[in-house]
Amino acid sequence: MAELRLGMAQVNTTVGDFEGNTAIILNYLDMARTAGVDIVTFPELALCGYPPEDLLLKPQFIKEGLRTLDRVVKATKGITAIIGFVDGDDGIYNAAAIIHDGKLIDKYHKILLPNYGVFDEYRYFRPGNECPVYTIGGVGVGINICEDMWHGVGPDNFQARAGAGLIINISASPYHKGKGNERKKLFSDHARDNLANVVYNNLVGGQDELVFDGDSFIINEKGEVIVQGKQFEEDLIVADIDVETAHHARMHDPGWQTRMESKVARWNTKSVIVSEEPAKTRKPPLSRRETVKEYEPPAEVYHALVVGTRDYIRKNGFKKVLIGLSGGIDSSLVAAVAAEALGAGNVVGVAMPSRYSSPDSLSDARKLTENLGTELLTIPIEAVFAAYLETLAPVCAKTGPDVTEENLQARIRGNLLMALSNKFGWLVLTTGNKSEYATGYTTLYGDMAGGFAVIKDVPKMLVYQACRYLNRRAGYDLIPQSVIDKVPSAELRPGQKDSDTLPLYEQLDPVLTAYVEEDKSIEEIVAMGFPEEVVKKTARLVDTSEYKRRQAPPGIKITPRAFGRDRRLPITNRFYKW
Amino acid sequence: MAELRLGMAQVNTTVGDFEGNTAIILNYLDMARTAGVDIVTFPELALCGYPPEDLLLKPQFIKEGLRTLDRVVKATKGITAIIGFVDGDDGIYNAAAIIHDGKLIDKYHKILLPNYGVFDEYRYFRPGNECPVYTIGGVGVGINICEDMWHGVGPDNFQARAGAGLIINISASPYHKGKGNERKKLFSDHARDNLANVVYNNLVGGQDELVFDGDSFIINEKGEVIVQGKQFEEDLIVADIDVETAHHARMHDPGWQTRMESKVARWNTKSVIVSEEPAKTRKPPLSRRETVKEYEPPAEVYHALVVGTRDYIRKNGFKKVLIGLSGGIDSSLVAAVAAEALGAGNVVGVAMPSRYSSPDSLSDARKLTENLGTELLTIPIEAVFAAYLETLAPVCAKTGPDVTEENLQARIRGNLLMALSNKFGWLVLTTGNKSEYATGYTTLYGDMAGGFAVIKDVPKMLVYQACRYLNRRAGYDLIPQSVIDKVPSAELRPGQKDSDTLPLYEQLDPVLTAYVEEDKSIEEIVAMGFPEEVVKKTARLVDTSEYKRRQAPPGIKITPRAFGRDRRLPITNRFYKW
Repeated sequence: MAELRLGMAQVNTTVGDFEGNTAIILNYLDMARTAGVDIVTFPELALCGYPPEDLLLKPQFIKEGLRTLDRVVKATKGITAIIGFVDGDDGIYNAAAIIHDGKLIDKYHKILLPNYGVFDEYRYFRPGNECPVYTIGGVGVGINICEDMWHGVGPDNFQARAGAGLIINISASPYHKGKGNERKKLFSDHARDNLANVVYNNLVGGQDELVFDGDSFIINEKGEVIVQGKQFEEDLIVADIDVETAHHARMHDPGWQTRMESKVARWNTKSVIVSEEPAKTRKPPLSRRETVKEYEPPAEVYHALVVGTRDYIRKNGFKKVLIGLSGGIDSSLVAAVAAEALGAGNVVGVAMPSRYSSPDSLSDARKLTENLGTELLTIPIEAVFAAYLETLAPVCAKTGPDVTEENLQARIRGNLLMALSNKFGWLVLTTGNKSEYATGYTTLYGDMAGGFAVIKDVPKMLVYQACRYLNRRAGYDLIPQSVIDKVPSAELRPGQKDSDTLPLYEQLDPVLTAYVEEDKSIEEIVAMGFPEEVVKKTARLVDTSEYKRRQAPPGIKITPRAFGRDRRLPITNRFYKW
Repeated sequence: MAELRLGMAQVNTTVGDFEGNTAIILNYLDMARTAGVDIVTFPELALCGYPPEDLLLKPQFIKEGLRTLDRVVKATKGITAIIGFVDGDDGIYNAAAIIHDGKLIDKYHKILLPNYGVFDEYRYFRPGNECPVYTIGGVGVGINICEDMWHGVGPDNFQARAGAGLIINISASPYHKGKGNERKKLFSDHARDNLANVVYNNLVGGQDELVFDGDSFIINEKGEVIVQGKQFEEDLIVADIDVETAHHARMHDPGWQTRMESKVARWNTKSVIVSEEPAKTRKPPLSRRETVKEYEPPAEVYHALVVGTRDYIRKNGFKKVLIGLSGGIDSSLVAAVAAEALGAGNVVGVAMPSRYSSPDSLSDARKLTENLGTELLTIPIEAVFAAYLETLAPVCAKTGPDVTEENLQARIRGNLLMALSNKFGWLVLTTGNKSEYATGYTTLYGDMAGGFAVIKDVPKMLVYQACRYLNRRAGYDLIPQSVIDKVPSAELRPGQKDSDTLPLYEQLDPVLTAYVEEDKSIEEIVAMGFPEEVVKKTARLVDTSEYKRRQAPPGIKITPRAFGRDRRLPITNRFYKW
């Protein structure tokens, strides 16, 4: 029986940290060896971290990666390892090293390069054009990288046709809500199509605006998930794969070969023998793996936020964070995420009441911090606000109050948080949600001031859902019910409500999704059943706030299209229909 | 004699402004017709503006462009026009419309798509694969687009070999210092190589971080520039081109055909007859064109700043700008640029003295605004600063003064400028230079607060050069000599000098160029002759300031690699060697 024990190292590496990443890789190599693994796999560009962006343009970065690969190769005694790295010479390639028993046997170059959404791979990499099948432990194995399997026809089809009964895809696939199911559907289709086992090894962890959710899996030739990694955590997933069944299935489907032939005629092939000896049959028994229970949508998003926040803070060398607490639901959610990501002792809430703050605001902030176990500082802004008004009075003598005075208050709060950040070395987390960033309902240098915008890609209605999830999980009102129930307000003038300026969030959020994430036109959104004036107003707010978003801190992508690298609109832009 | 009268419309279009761009195009069509032009050309994507970025992902944007093209086609009675537009169906193409006498004859699809530096064309466009030669007025003409001619071998070689004696390249090539000469060298090589006349029609004007410098030209088959457009201004450049000489040259070089054959075998070809009738020989006499005098380097940069600033402000619907004037050289240059770009009456300077400001600072700011003829407001920051210190005292009781108090002052100034911006609708121009942005010697939400960062890509030493150029041009000390002579200081603590924190600018600037623009390693820069501690410190400052730059306003690219879309580094990044 052609059976291989496969181990997927679902690791959390850091961009540019060759030293640290090597330590992680060597550790997983050891664990895999101990578990009797024949082939251990690591994610796409595991060695240098993903995505390295313009570090790839530095020749010294490429060289150091190649030197580091040499070290890792030497550490693979007695095992086969597949590791993502940057191969380079005159051009560079997004590559997988095929390493066996202390030797670098071959390099596979990623063929299909993504250059959409958050991806810029054509900026850096040459596409590969060779699509080998490796004989490992006597079994035909196809190896490819991420995007290679995201299309109807790809290298995996070629590899299957050329005899691979096992296809390994090493990946760095950023999370968005519901993407896990998308992936499983896609890879399951490919597995059935190829009549092959498919190993999908994803990265885990946060890198700037991206979170990689892990959630690696192995799918058999029937398209069934046979084992699955954890979501949002490091994991070593070990499974025995019986490749015979795939070959059997092919024998019983005489049309398969013809179908595959008609699909693939694009790349060169070669066959490479890594090891002909069948894998050892005497292995340590596989320890029983607990079934991974996947998170439901709001919980999944919440955990993405936790990982994204933890990794941004930690990988950038910070320990403690500061959050302006208004008593509202957005800052409450951010504080809860931060407390889970970093520990309550590393979160400092700051209440900054003004003449317009309701008494509830302070008491709700206090209640929240008691529930979370975090510190709360209170710094009233009245004295500074009064000083600004007096200072500006001579220049603004003939004008009445307007948004200027509202923004001033937000900016005083931003400055106070930044002063504490400068004084104590704590990073400021901002609290604006996606509905606010989309519509510009946020103050540049005010509530937008800070190092990381935790819920920047979370629409307001999803903020509510995440808070309700947290309370269900806690079994009590961790986020005080009064915070969830109150009418949303920026409290920057007497009696202010968000709905004075914005459509109701119940309408706003789906209109934003259609306009921002789906590129629908105003007519199309109106045809979906939304009032024309709401749609036009929303489109106008989105289009005229681009300049603000351009100066926003990075935040965690959790939707199919986030603001940031994912959506690149000009500021100077006269294409509007409102 | 096969002679064609060619007109290049070097126009300033706006992204997304189909209505406005059409008006410009129709106007130039009329002017060309009046001048007896046979073929009038317009820049790459002239119809929708360049670069449209993710507007290209909106189907309604593509459709409106195609509708607009129909209107333009109808307006081409009696002339041949080549116009850049987005062709679209299931995929989209960066295209040139070949229009003749009210009919759309053909569409050329750009073959070589740039995806480096500021370019992301693979994000949007499919590459063309057909490389036609058009017969226009009985003459063989090759038409291609920008990047198509930036490589050793390209569509132009193919077109020449297939019989084109005239090659038209419509372009949108962003400016950087000295790029005009690079281009002329490159196109001159191609013209000689192809033994063909080459028409290079560039765009002009500012779009967010990019300035297009115009500087269009026609080069004959000997590689000589025969006519040239203005730099940084709209222009209609008309010239009679004798194509016979190119064919003659080919006849006298029997090896030419063989050389070209060996170069090109990549794209399909076809030949398309646009008009067989030779061009009319009776045309209005060509009015004598004044020779364009090109700007010398610091003047060229200065004019790029003027155009970039004017277009950003005007195209975004602003009229008036605000500038914080410290009495230093950076804000002085920005004020001078703004006064030239917008008129002195549209520039408001604001002096915001503190307890640490020297008396010279205010008097220098006053002198500058007198010279420029701009308004000056004076708003002392002491009262607000004192209120902040008092407000923060309870929380910061046990700490001494540090960078916190310095940043507070910068942020108070940022807030005051933004308050005036909110109150009066004036856009704030920021005054940080490239040396400061590179090293993070700038305060987030402080001196970085504003809508547009005019000199963000201008290194400090070039700021001095530009000011000296201005004074030479003015014939007196427009920028007061005391401003040029003073030791650079942020004046945020007693006796502060830039050199307390930064290497001397004479050393800093070349080290920054090597590290930031040329991707040189620390060892390589040390080997260039700079002290190791200076190089390491500079690299550390650059690498650890990425988070600040990510929140910076857009500014004008004037070097080969600007901060912004041109340089995409991760914030979370452990690749450092200092």
